[in-house]
Amino acid sequence: MMQFMPEKFVAAPLPYLLSKAALHDLTAAELAKVEAIFAETLAPFREPFPDLIDHLQHYKGKRLRPMLVLLSGLACGKLTPAHYTLAAVVEMIHTATLVHDDVLDEAETRRHVSTINSRWGNQQSILLGDVLFSSAFRLCATVDAHACLKIGETTNRVCAGELLQVRSARNWELTEADYFQIILGKTGTLTECCTHLGAYYAGSSPEIVKQLALFGRNLGLAFQIADDLLDLEGDSEVVGKTLGTDLLQGKLTLPLIRFLNEAPPRERSALRALLSHPSGHQELIARLRKSHALESSKKTCQKLVEEAQESLEKLRPSQAKDALTTLAYWSGKRDR
Amino acid sequence: MMQFMPEKFVAAPLPYLLSKAALHDLTAAELAKVEAIFAETLAPFREPFPDLIDHLQHYKGKRLRPMLVLLSGLACGKLTPAHYTLAAVVEMIHTATLVHDDVLDEAETRRHVSTINSRWGNQQSILLGDVLFSSAFRLCATVDAHACLKIGETTNRVCAGELLQVRSARNWELTEADYFQIILGKTGTLTECCTHLGAYYAGSSPEIVKQLALFGRNLGLAFQIADDLLDLEGDSEVVGKTLGTDLLQGKLTLPLIRFLNEAPPRERSALRALLSHPSGHQELIARLRKSHALESSKKTCQKLVEEAQESLEKLRPSQAKDALTTLAYWSGKRDR
Repeated sequence: MMQFMPEKFVAAPLPYLLSKAALHDLTAAELAKVEAIFAETLAPFREPFPDLIDHLQHYKGKRLRPMLVLLSGLACGKLTPAHYTLAAVVEMIHTATLVHDDVLDEAETRRHVSTINSRWGNQQSILLGDVLFSSAFRLCATVDAHACLKIGETTNRVCAGELLQVRSARNWELTEADYFQIILGKTGTLTECCTHLGAYYAGSSPEIVKQLALFGRNLGLAFQIADDLLDLEGDSEVVGKTLGTDLLQGKLTLPLIRFLNEAPPRERSALRALLSHPSGHQELIARLRKSHALESSKKTCQKLVEEAQESLEKLRPSQAKDALTTLAYWSGKRDR
Repeated sequence: MMQFMPEKFVAAPLPYLLSKAALHDLTAAELAKVEAIFAETLAPFREPFPDLIDHLQHYKGKRLRPMLVLLSGLACGKLTPAHYTLAAVVEMIHTATLVHDDVLDEAETRRHVSTINSRWGNQQSILLGDVLFSSAFRLCATVDAHACLKIGETTNRVCAGELLQVRSARNWELTEADYFQIILGKTGTLTECCTHLGAYYAGSSPEIVKQLALFGRNLGLAFQIADDLLDLEGDSEVVGKTLGTDLLQGKLTLPLIRFLNEAPPRERSALRALLSHPSGHQELIARLRKSHALESSKKTCQKLVEEAQESLEKLRPSQAKDALTTLAYWSGKRDR
C-alpha cells in the first residue's frame, strides 16, 4: 500500500490510521502541494527572519485542518487550485493561534521543542503571530472575496472564543453551555470552515455544503473534548506537553464541570477549595478519576463523532468519504 | 465656517488646521459614516466584551488614515461606498497595531488614559488585537478581492517592519538605511495603502494611483520622523505619553543615529556607554540637543513633506487637494 505521508510530515498516529483506511486518492503529493504553498507564502519573511520562520517547522502537527479541506473537496467532487490554497490558509491561521496561545499560556515547550516565546520572547511571538494571520489573509485574497469573507468570519469567531476563554479563567461556576461556546469558538469554528470550504469549492449544493460544515463542527468539538480529556488522563511523554495545565491556568473543562455539578452539595465547597489552590489540583484530579465524569465526557465526545459521521450519509461512497469517517473516529480517540 | 469634526472625534490640532484649509467637501458627516461602519463592525464583540470594546474609544486619535482614504478619493474623483468601508478597515488595522504595540512596549498610558494591557492584562490585549485584525479583514472582504490583496500585502509589511524594529532593539550600530526600512514598514506602508486605495476606488489612472501612493508613503515617513523627534524634544503634558521612551526601549531614531555618526571617533565610545545604561540617557539627550542632529532630522522630515506635496502636482485643483497638502504640512510639524 502506498505511503500516506512522509515521516517528517506528520509525527502523530493519524497517518497510520488513515493509511489503514484505503486512501489512494489523497496522497502525500497532495499535502506536499499545500506545504509548498505554505512555505512559498512565508518565503518573504524567511530572508529577514530565518530563525523564527524555520522554527515554525516544529509547530507542524497533524495537519488535520488541511486534510479536512482536501478530503471534503475530494468527497464532494474534484480538487481545484482553491482547495490547496485554502488548505494552506487554514493551517497558517491555526499556526498563528498556536503562536499566540503559547504566549497566553506562558508555555515553555510544544511538541517536545521550546516554544517561540520561551526562545525569542513575547514581543517576537506576538509579531510572528500577526505575520502569520496577515499572511493567511493575503494568501486567501488570491482565491476570491467569498473565501476572504468566510475566513474573516471564522477568525472573528476563533478570536472571540479565545477571548471568552481567557476571561472565563478561574470562573469555577462555568457551565456546560459556557464550555461549549468556548470550544465551538476556539476549535469547532475552524474545522467547520475547513469542511465548508472543501465542499463549496468542489461545487457542492448548499445542502451538501451545510452537511459537510456540520461534520467539521462536530469533529472539532469532539477533537477538543478529547484534547481536554488528554490533559486529565493522558501520558505527558506521549503528548509532548505538561498535563494538568488547563486547571493550573484556571480553565474548567467538560469532565471537571460535570464532576463539580454531580458532587453532592455538601462536598462542593471542599472541591472548590481544592480548585482555588494549585496544591489541591492533584487531589481533585484523583477524585475526578474515580467519578463518572471522565466516562460521561467520553460518551459526549463519542456522540459528537457519530453525529459528524451521520452528516456524511448523503455523500456518494468514496475513499475520501471513508477517510473523513476515519478522521472523525480518530478525533474522538486521540492519545496526543 | 462649518465645523470640521465634532470635538469628541478628534482631540488633536489637526481639525483646526484642516478647518483653516477651505474644506467644505469633507465634512464631519463623511467621517461619521466611517465611525458608524467601525462601530457596526465591532458590534458583535461589544455584547460579550463591552468593557474592552468601549475602552477602544480612548484609542481614537487623529483619524489620519481614514482622512487620507477619503481625501485621496475626493481629490481624484468621487467617493464610493468602498471608500468609507476601507477608511474603517485601515483605522481598525491601525488600532490593532496600537493595542499590540502597547503590549510590546509595556505601555501604561495612551492619550492620557490607561492602556488595555495595563487594565486588562496582556492576554486580553493580544486577543483584542487579533479581534481587530480579523474584523478588519472580514470587513475588507465586503469590498472585493483587490482590496483584500492590497490590505493583506500592507499588513504583511507593517508586521515585518514591527518585527524588524523589535529585533533591532539595543542594536546601537543601526544605520539610517535600517531606520528607514523600519519606519517605512511600520508607518509609511499603511499611509501609502490609504492614499493608493483612495485614488484607486475613485477610478484614477495607474499613474495617478502611483503618485497618490507616493504621497501617502512620504507623508507617513515624515509623520514618523516627526513622532520620533517628539520623543526627544516634545512636551510630555501635550503629547500624553512619557518622553525618551524610544531610547529606553533600545530604539535608535534618526536624530540619534545622525548624532552618533557625526560624533568624533574618540567620543563615540563614551556615547555608546551612555546609550547602554538608562541612567546615561538624559545626558545623551542633552548632548544631542546641542548638536545639529535635531535640525538635520527636521530638514529630512521637511524634504519628505515637500516630496509628498509635489506628488499631488498632476491633480486638478480642489479643496480635497488643498486638504491633502495641509495634512502633509501638519505631518511634519505635529506637536502631539
